[in-house]
Amino acid sequence: MDKASAWFADGSGGLAWREDSLPTLRSSDILINVQAAGVNRPDLLQRAGLYPPPPGASEALGLEVAGIVEAVGDAVSRFQPGDRVMALVPGGGYAEHCLAPEGSTMPLPKAWSIAQGAAFPETGFTVWANVFDSGSLTVGQSIFLHGATSGIGTMAASMAKALGHPIFGTAGTDEKAGEAETLGFQKVWNYKEDDWSAAMQAEGGADLVLDMVGGDYVEKNLAALKDGGRHVSIAFQGGINATVNIMNLMRRRLTLTGSTLRARPEEEKTRLRTEIEAKLFPLIEVGKLTPHISLEVPMADVEVAHCAMREGRLIGKAVLTR
Amino acid sequence: MDKASAWFADGSGGLAWREDSLPTLRSSDILINVQAAGVNRPDLLQRAGLYPPPPGASEALGLEVAGIVEAVGDAVSRFQPGDRVMALVPGGGYAEHCLAPEGSTMPLPKAWSIAQGAAFPETGFTVWANVFDSGSLTVGQSIFLHGATSGIGTMAASMAKALGHPIFGTAGTDEKAGEAETLGFQKVWNYKEDDWSAAMQAEGGADLVLDMVGGDYVEKNLAALKDGGRHVSIAFQGGINATVNIMNLMRRRLTLTGSTLRARPEEEKTRLRTEIEAKLFPLIEVGKLTPHISLEVPMADVEVAHCAMREGRLIGKAVLTR
Repeated sequence: MDKASAWFADGSGGLAWREDSLPTLRSSDILINVQAAGVNRPDLLQRAGLYPPPPGASEALGLEVAGIVEAVGDAVSRFQPGDRVMALVPGGGYAEHCLAPEGSTMPLPKAWSIAQGAAFPETGFTVWANVFDSGSLTVGQSIFLHGATSGIGTMAASMAKALGHPIFGTAGTDEKAGEAETLGFQKVWNYKEDDWSAAMQAEGGADLVLDMVGGDYVEKNLAALKDGGRHVSIAFQGGINATVNIMNLMRRRLTLTGSTLRARPEEEKTRLRTEIEAKLFPLIEVGKLTPHISLEVPMADVEVAHCAMREGRLIGKAVLTR
Repeated sequence: MDKASAWFADGSGGLAWREDSLPTLRSSDILINVQAAGVNRPDLLQRAGLYPPPPGASEALGLEVAGIVEAVGDAVSRFQPGDRVMALVPGGGYAEHCLAPEGSTMPLPKAWSIAQGAAFPETGFTVWANVFDSGSLTVGQSIFLHGATSGIGTMAASMAKALGHPIFGTAGTDEKAGEAETLGFQKVWNYKEDDWSAAMQAEGGADLVLDMVGGDYVEKNLAALKDGGRHVSIAFQGGINATVNIMNLMRRRLTLTGSTLRARPEEEKTRLRTEIEAKLFPLIEVGKLTPHISLEVPMADVEVAHCAMREGRLIGKAVLTR
């Protein structure tokens, strides 16, 4: 098995399904027969040529998969052919076959379908790493984010609820705000109409803002934080630069930080995966944590999923199935 | 004892020595017969009307003192009249007598003179709180700051050396840079002439930048950090706003934070004082940590000290003595 068909960026903003060589299976890699692949916003950037895969990764799209193990490298000890797994991958998920590092591969929880498994790794790792990693939130501390109905938003809500943290957010329409409140959010405001920053302060302020917008939202996000609160950037859909008032930062002892998931070294992903299995799998097995899937389409219909994401019609995740 | 003579801002940028009521001695306060008072940059702001004392604090200038305990409130247990002490105070240090909360008062180390005691609390608490508190730097991690010859800079150098951290910095002249290198800095660049950001990267990058400049220095400071490094603001002498590139923050997993010392609640200062006594006093007693005093003048000559600070002629601290 050294070739697989997959969806690639065609170089002019579209997608092409074609067969290509798989990257070399290293001793720590797993070859997965892909049954389902999750769709993520960075996939839209990658097809537009704005988010190249890291060195060594497949050029095909797709950052998360679930499927059946087909082969394993010499050093792989946790999995064997036939196992049902889900994995965070540096690329190549929209495919028949995909390579995954053992460190980012997890057994598929018994409580979950293959599609649910494919909907978890990217948002699961992202939310865990940026909100909960290293016990950075103490029990009862609150979270705020924009895009409450996004894949990240719905995963954060599910995790926050399961771990005992109130979560607040915004959405682009009142309908979405209402939907998000049924999915675990305490309160969701309409970012086009409400003064969400003041409204969050009226609720006591947030201990942590998980931000995907950047730009001039950062200042308003900071105003929504409690004194001593933390602002964590994971995207900048609204602008790459933010103006920060140093006096406020000092006076209110705020912290700004951020990270990307894809570029983290494998040992770091392995550490996160170990924490996720230890802390979240028990909640998953008893039904307390589930990805919210909005759309499930055959892999051939990738454009349906991308279009729905681009037009903001998803409430939760889109998954491609085979 | 309910009145004391002290230096006050005269409302037009000057200073006036006059007698005024002391704030009420609370049960947790100590009345200190001031033998020496440290001079700090915020004192210049306060006389200019830009840094009002927090509610309840003396209106007189002065954030740190050393002297003899003259009286104690009912709840004070660690000190009694006659004890030699040094204290961080919310105001009123440039005076004959000064009130200090017990939580921010320390015994004067036997190894130190009264003047050295008065030169320690403000920079000692500031550097401890922002660089070392809660074990935020692990052994061997490096520090970078501007103003290597300032009170903060020389205290940071002494603490860094005593605790095993390489420290780097900048100064405004080659002479000052040379002086700072004799005081414990590994390497000090001239911020007017050198590309200190690139030079710091050539040394491997800093784990922590302690910044007093703000404005457009922030971006260059961030460029001087290692990936995963932390930028801590304690002043903004060069501008209140900073532009932060969110993509860099994410890609390099940087953290920006900051704090003020004066506005922290008393229980927080008590916690810091407890840590400082536990971690630094053993180093002080064996001569490994000493404030660097540049100028010692009688309290009547306060203008001499302020002028020297304003003109950047100090290497370390200025102290007023009685």
